[in-house]
Amino acid sequence: MNVAVLLFDDFETLDVFGPVEIFGRLKDQYQIQFYSESGGLIKNNHGVAVQSEKIEDIKKEIGVFLIPGGWGTRKEVHNVYLIEKIKEVSQSSKFVHTVCTGTALLAKTGLLDGKRATSNKRAFDWVITQGEKIIWIRKARWTKDGKFYTSAGVSAGMDMTLGFLSDIHGIDFARKVAFEIEYNWIENMEEDNFYQQ
Amino acid sequence: MNVAVLLFDDFETLDVFGPVEIFGRLKDQYQIQFYSESGGLIKNNHGVAVQSEKIEDIKKEIGVFLIPGGWGTRKEVHNVYLIEKIKEVSQSSKFVHTVCTGTALLAKTGLLDGKRATSNKRAFDWVITQGEKIIWIRKARWTKDGKFYTSAGVSAGMDMTLGFLSDIHGIDFARKVAFEIEYNWIENMEEDNFYQQ
Repeated sequence: MNVAVLLFDDFETLDVFGPVEIFGRLKDQYQIQFYSESGGLIKNNHGVAVQSEKIEDIKKEIGVFLIPGGWGTRKEVHNVYLIEKIKEVSQSSKFVHTVCTGTALLAKTGLLDGKRATSNKRAFDWVITQGEKIIWIRKARWTKDGKFYTSAGVSAGMDMTLGFLSDIHGIDFARKVAFEIEYNWIENMEEDNFYQQ
Repeated sequence: MNVAVLLFDDFETLDVFGPVEIFGRLKDQYQIQFYSESGGLIKNNHGVAVQSEKIEDIKKEIGVFLIPGGWGTRKEVHNVYLIEKIKEVSQSSKFVHTVCTGTALLAKTGLLDGKRATSNKRAFDWVITQGEKIIWIRKARWTKDGKFYTSAGVSAGMDMTLGFLSDIHGIDFARKVAFEIEYNWIENMEEDNFYQQ
């Protein structure tokens, strides 16, 4: 299954590279490629610059389309071209994963309307303004609804990705991966320590 | 304080980007730059390609020198030029951090001799052959000995980095950062769930 990772200026580092660590080590099952609107080096405010291809060059069907969050989402929700591309790729992908405020970008496409979703706890009040017909689950480590997986803030992307592996390959497989990266996986998608009423 | 991150072919994704997420968001305290032997794009087996500068161009004093692990370390321990550079930069850095098998590279310089260190649990038997005068702590999430911090496998780099922030800025500061990235920080460096006798 191929994994297409969306990049844009000021993406959040760990939103991208937590899931990439997990998918990346499963060479027999997943192949990762990075895409952005312009292609080339995409930079963020952590000093990271990552090589990418143009999103318009996605021709094949995608297995997992991964949409990270970050400060850049505040700008990109207004980028009509990018939102349209996100919609197109999401429609033709087998699964769509969002991390943190990446959920706002997917929300903006309308594809999450009527579905359950979550996001970063501290940005939640902003994120929900991007999709008022979505069933927002404020207290969740991650959600799944059909082919759409959405996670809480930053680190939660790793728990969601392991949860996805569990759904696809079984829980023993997911636990083995968590063990290999010495990660204390939160197995229960409802176990969210960062929700504060 | 500036943070110099070492890259080499087949570095481990999260060894690098876990700590980079944490330092990266503290713009007022830390500035990150990536370095490698050759400069330019450095790739790993997860499909990631990151822009870097040449390590020989490090002229200023470094605050934190971060050495990640990954499959590439198996080759780089035999790279005499790189090990010499790692030694030079480590000597002139205020702090040196290693994640996972990155400890093997630092071990090879001799600078850890007589000091306490740890590494990835599953690669431990190989790592310790790189420095037989080191006091190896097999059961540890991370260690610190003077200016040298070393961590267990992959995800443990994040716990170590937060532990470092706690040492420098206080535990409330470190907890706030962990909260912001919704990370369940293992605060106790001796709490290692991945050690198996």
